Amino acid sequence: MITVEEARALLLDLVRPLGAEEAPLAEAAGRVLAHDVAATRDQPPFAAASMDGYAVKSAEVERHAMFKVIGEAAAGHRFDGVLGAGQAVRIFTGAPVPAGADFVVIQEDVSRTGDLVTITDAPGDKPNIRPAGVDFRVGQTLAAPRILRPEDVALLASMNIPRVPVRRRPVVALISTGDELVMPGETPGPDQIIASNTFGLKALFEANGAQVRVLPIARDTRASLTTAFDLAQGADLVITIGGASVGDHDLVAHVAGDLGMERSFYKVRMRPGKPLMAGRIGDMPMVGLPGNPVSAMVCGYIFILPMLRRMLELDPGITLCEAVLSAPLGPNGPREHYMRARVDDGQIATFGDQDSSLLSILAQANALLMRPPEDPARTAGERVRYVPI
Amino acid sequence: MITVEEARALLLDLVRPLGAEEAPLAEAAGRVLAHDVAATRDQPPFAAASMDGYAVKSAEVERHAMFKVIGEAAAGHRFDGVLGAGQAVRIFTGAPVPAGADFVVIQEDVSRTGDLVTITDAPGDKPNIRPAGVDFRVGQTLAAPRILRPEDVALLASMNIPRVPVRRRPVVALISTGDELVMPGETPGPDQIIASNTFGLKALFEANGAQVRVLPIARDTRASLTTAFDLAQGADLVITIGGASVGDHDLVAHVAGDLGMERSFYKVRMRPGKPLMAGRIGDMPMVGLPGNPVSAMVCGYIFILPMLRRMLELDPGITLCEAVLSAPLGPNGPREHYMRARVDDGQIATFGDQDSSLLSILAQANALLMRPPEDPARTAGERVRYVPI
Repeated sequence: MITVEEARALLLDLVRPLGAEEAPLAEAAGRVLAHDVAATRDQPPFAAASMDGYAVKSAEVERHAMFKVIGEAAAGHRFDGVLGAGQAVRIFTGAPVPAGADFVVIQEDVSRTGDLVTITDAPGDKPNIRPAGVDFRVGQTLAAPRILRPEDVALLASMNIPRVPVRRRPVVALISTGDELVMPGETPGPDQIIASNTFGLKALFEANGAQVRVLPIARDTRASLTTAFDLAQGADLVITIGGASVGDHDLVAHVAGDLGMERSFYKVRMRPGKPLMAGRIGDMPMVGLPGNPVSAMVCGYIFILPMLRRMLELDPGITLCEAVLSAPLGPNGPREHYMRARVDDGQIATFGDQDSSLLSILAQANALLMRPPEDPARTAGERVRYVPI
Repeated sequence: MITVEEARALLLDLVRPLGAEEAPLAEAAGRVLAHDVAATRDQPPFAAASMDGYAVKSAEVERHAMFKVIGEAAAGHRFDGVLGAGQAVRIFTGAPVPAGADFVVIQEDVSRTGDLVTITDAPGDKPNIRPAGVDFRVGQTLAAPRILRPEDVALLASMNIPRVPVRRRPVVALISTGDELVMPGETPGPDQIIASNTFGLKALFEANGAQVRVLPIARDTRASLTTAFDLAQGADLVITIGGASVGDHDLVAHVAGDLGMERSFYKVRMRPGKPLMAGRIGDMPMVGLPGNPVSAMVCGYIFILPMLRRMLELDPGITLCEAVLSAPLGPNGPREHYMRARVDDGQIATFGDQDSSLLSILAQANALLMRPPEDPARTAGERVRYVPI
């Protein structure tokens, strides 16, 4: 048996960052920026009014000063002339500041009669002008890799980047195995249950940047499994789930072996999720997850998400948060234990029944409390670490 | 001027929860469950082995006891007979426990010779059987409303719910206005800039459950704006952005007024984002956001996301988190101020330049530090509240 960390390192060795592709800006949110992109322009491209008012020369700004209004500048429509002494241009927020002007008196500080404006209130020192390039300049970059947030998308738009270089989404082929499984919506026989792992893992992986191909359930025969592996061709990662009906993964291992897989390992010192297999069929990385629903989902978080992150060129590490135990915990055994738990307001409580078949408990949990191997008993009030789910 | 809270209450009055529709289970993750769904079966539907081993009668279990193996039960393939005294059935994880058996001796605790197995190690008290219905029973519900997580999807699969009742996605029509705007990828004139709000807000709203229709940029003419409003017909919410080139929203307000809008209000005691307009054109709620990029995004978080959440029947409240100030802050003025800030390890620091045009700062921020009106000066080490972004 190997440790969770050793298993993760072996799994991460199976994958590498995928290539880049272009996404339309409108579809780029949530994707991973593949390389730095540079602004193609200054923003703003000209000195711009930040308030509605009158553009004038700052040297002439004082209370009671009077100006002749010689034109107007609006956003999208500059005033084409040059401002002379004693002159003002009516200006609106976002408009280019006219040549010759370097101050905007806000409209609340003036009174206007016909073409004449008089400064009636102390206009202060703020020129109410945004200098050209104050937000960014040509060539300024947004650095990769990063998951593009709405704020990044707005910035990329402003930089005039209509198509964005993003990491290709990892294609994950999911193969549930077992004669006992039917798809949701089918009528199971008396010995059968519904394939749930496929749907939970699909949702989990897609929320983390993958594109998931759900393959037909593989029956417990070499022919059926071989067909499933054939259908998985071209995926960046193929994942089998289960195989328990004939012993842990035995059939899956045999068929994968026939297809040329060199398997990396079998057992991880972990609860839930001890049986785990990994290797490579030709160029295609393959991971065999345990069939228990909770084990499969926990292995998804602990092992597969890091692989997806590496393929997306993100930090593959697991983020552990801290919370305060609200009830004592007995000592842990020799395996790293990921316990379904609930975190509320910084307090964490584990669920009483940790049987790896209980999806109803998993759906109530929002955390996996991580207990290191041989962790001693813990008292209420101690800080513990968890994976948010 | 009205407060942020008053503005939000008025905006929330404009919308109500949308109807339900069915989503295929494979596409249900991230959607909002519209009403409680009940399991259509027990899980497991039969008492099932939780380990590989031999099914026997518990009364006969003791060290050195010997059993005759009369058959096999695998997942998906039950043993059809009834177990008698002194008999055992080879059983694998997930298989139905045969009639007459109530204990599974794990395979590590027996030795087998031909059809005979002998218990060689103390088998303990655990029967290694999952009772029928231990995960859930027919009729047990997953409660609405909730955003469906991968764990919920797995549970729904297991309950055999192939189509899931979910809240319809709010359709939001976005209209950017202004002669100064061009779409990303176009070549702006010397007085023009790129429409960035549309793309940032689209990403923000879609990440929060909406379906966004980006309409063509409306020019600063009645005809262009009227066309845009026509194109917005059928949306659950129409949002205009900007209008600043002709004074705050004046043109938008006039055209919306011509279309029968009764406007709810104009100015909010808030920074950034003071100019805000809302009302209803026929049945369609309408909100006019300020055109400054940062103001538009902040108003998206503070005002529009709560409206989306109400339409999705989720709690529309704003979640404020707490962090410790890492540098002092001067006193706040009369308006509630949402300052771009960065939270790292529980420490929060605001950016020096809070000008509402700076998208480059917004893209670096991961929090909006919220300062109440007239908040006094704060020292480093004080706890403050923020909206995570």
